[in-house]
Amino acid sequence: MTLAINDLNVPYRLLLGPGPSAVHPRVLRTMSTALVGYLDPEWLSLMDEEQALLRDVFQTKNTLTFPISGTGSAGMETAFCNFVEPGDTVVIGCNGYFSERMCEMARLYGADVKRIEKSWGDVFTQEEVEAALAANKPVKLFALIHAETSTGALQPLEGMGEIAHRHGALLLVDCVTSLSGAPLKIDEWGIDLAFSASQKCLGCPPGLSPFTAGEKAVEILHRRKNRVPNWYLDLTLLEKYWNKERVYHHTPSTTLHYGLREGLRLVLEEGLEDRWVRHRAIAEYLWEKMEALGLKLFIRREHRLPSLTTVCVPDGADDAAVRTRLREAYNIDIAGGFGPLKGKIWRVGLMGFSSRRENVTLLSEALREILDGRK
Amino acid sequence: MTLAINDLNVPYRLLLGPGPSAVHPRVLRTMSTALVGYLDPEWLSLMDEEQALLRDVFQTKNTLTFPISGTGSAGMETAFCNFVEPGDTVVIGCNGYFSERMCEMARLYGADVKRIEKSWGDVFTQEEVEAALAANKPVKLFALIHAETSTGALQPLEGMGEIAHRHGALLLVDCVTSLSGAPLKIDEWGIDLAFSASQKCLGCPPGLSPFTAGEKAVEILHRRKNRVPNWYLDLTLLEKYWNKERVYHHTPSTTLHYGLREGLRLVLEEGLEDRWVRHRAIAEYLWEKMEALGLKLFIRREHRLPSLTTVCVPDGADDAAVRTRLREAYNIDIAGGFGPLKGKIWRVGLMGFSSRRENVTLLSEALREILDGRK
Repeated sequence: MTLAINDLNVPYRLLLGPGPSAVHPRVLRTMSTALVGYLDPEWLSLMDEEQALLRDVFQTKNTLTFPISGTGSAGMETAFCNFVEPGDTVVIGCNGYFSERMCEMARLYGADVKRIEKSWGDVFTQEEVEAALAANKPVKLFALIHAETSTGALQPLEGMGEIAHRHGALLLVDCVTSLSGAPLKIDEWGIDLAFSASQKCLGCPPGLSPFTAGEKAVEILHRRKNRVPNWYLDLTLLEKYWNKERVYHHTPSTTLHYGLREGLRLVLEEGLEDRWVRHRAIAEYLWEKMEALGLKLFIRREHRLPSLTTVCVPDGADDAAVRTRLREAYNIDIAGGFGPLKGKIWRVGLMGFSSRRENVTLLSEALREILDGRK
Repeated sequence: MTLAINDLNVPYRLLLGPGPSAVHPRVLRTMSTALVGYLDPEWLSLMDEEQALLRDVFQTKNTLTFPISGTGSAGMETAFCNFVEPGDTVVIGCNGYFSERMCEMARLYGADVKRIEKSWGDVFTQEEVEAALAANKPVKLFALIHAETSTGALQPLEGMGEIAHRHGALLLVDCVTSLSGAPLKIDEWGIDLAFSASQKCLGCPPGLSPFTAGEKAVEILHRRKNRVPNWYLDLTLLEKYWNKERVYHHTPSTTLHYGLREGLRLVLEEGLEDRWVRHRAIAEYLWEKMEALGLKLFIRREHRLPSLTTVCVPDGADDAAVRTRLREAYNIDIAGGFGPLKGKIWRVGLMGFSSRRENVTLLSEALREILDGRK
């Protein structure tokens, strides 16, 4: 019966949502390579190469730098299950959906969560962070979302590491939607812990979460009082496979790693800074085109993410109907808002291979046609 | 500097180890398909199809049947973090490496673990299970490894569900190395919980863990006293995306799912029973060839796995040197033993697309050349 299920025959969509973004053709091609075993010497060399590439993209020298076998949320959980113990104070900057997820996970691992709150779309100043950390001493971990995919806001990070460290806290940063799409300098900015995702600005399929932890964080990990209460994401076990004696933990997804290695090579071939400039330039073109259509952007210019733009749904337009028409008539995929922004914004991602001038030209003309009267 | 890292250029290996097995070319080809978004109506249909295919392969009607976003170990952890609460008694049949992993995970989630022990390579009888469950009442969960990859033993499962249920326990089965490679009937055999892996007999890349849970197990899940203490693997959140209102949890790995869907179609095209017969026939050919070389098999015939055969390293042969020569001169990948079997056995996997007569012919002739004096 189920044999009647056909060959895979998915429509070709232009992916301009919050991710997955379009995967670069070279990445897809590389992923058709036949597999090798996870202890093959050739595979072990590939792991070293992937880590070297990832350190360059993260702008770090951290030894503990490798992809977690899961999506960005698995990377987030890796941070909380390894670096939080019951009773630890964790301060979280709450200004969107993914910071709420952080609060949920931190509590799951026993943290005493202290929230600093801003409206969805706002960002935190150094003074606000300084005050929150001073008021909650001692703080084990202070967490911020660099690129908030639910709002389109870019949190400035320079100086935050210094403040966190002055208060004895580790700085954790979610850079799921910023890695290689916006300036991010793990070592220079004093970021102790960061996680990202393969399917955003890196232009690879979902399924891997690049992760990095600095020396001080690793020391804290090794001095834990209790065992890490999560087996699959336990960094003390994972680092034995990635960084030490190659002790088997779980079978890595060979094919996803082939793809990520190719995606990281593409980043460095383009040049990390040139890639940041491209993401910014294509985003600015989108902002211009949206404003030319009379549409308002949700985030004020100085805090806008280059990789994800939030456009206010104009009065009189039906949010879902416009997106359905975009998908059905033009094969363009963008997303709506959720939580307090449901029905109020469209989320347009221009990440990795999706960040191309012609995609913006097409999207804005399609939007014009739809808004001008569903031609 | 890292730009000097070359194009991916891995050697072509014949994968005859414990997994990953060779990925079917149609699966790799399918995975080069461009991605769609995770809420695209076309994607949601694919999810339904993947679940229907998976139910057929598991031989179950269970609603909660979908792949977990991780490898087999993530599937194992899913079972323990969702169905065990602190203080629950869990009985585990311990006769190899992966049952030790089960004990570790069960303890991590607060279980009172009762081990039934057998030597590595032995299997449990119904009488032994009956006695263990009677001695440890009340038992929440009873766990067995169907196909123990560290030893090559196949645990008979018929009747075990009935015994478990008579004692009020759920039956959990690890079928990582058996799903579609050996007879397995989830519903008929009364198995309440099972997990597998994509990279074994299903012939797909690693990264997904097919999972199924019966009605009684799902009721127990919904009646938990405490929240599931693992966010990424929380089935109460995952089922909302897979089975209910499509609430976003984490971004699924589109590309791995494309591949798994194709792998499952290949299973059903061949026919599940024909596929079991093929795995058994090719394994029997291997057993014959190994015995013709004067090699002993570690597991006695009636308990041998069709998907993974353990061959005793003959006196005078250097375990590692033989495997290195196989890899370097013939591009054949097999594995050694570990734990108490380190240096004593070779592990030869014949799974999915690797389960082919010509692979056995080649391996046995290569082994003959090496053992006959390293020609």
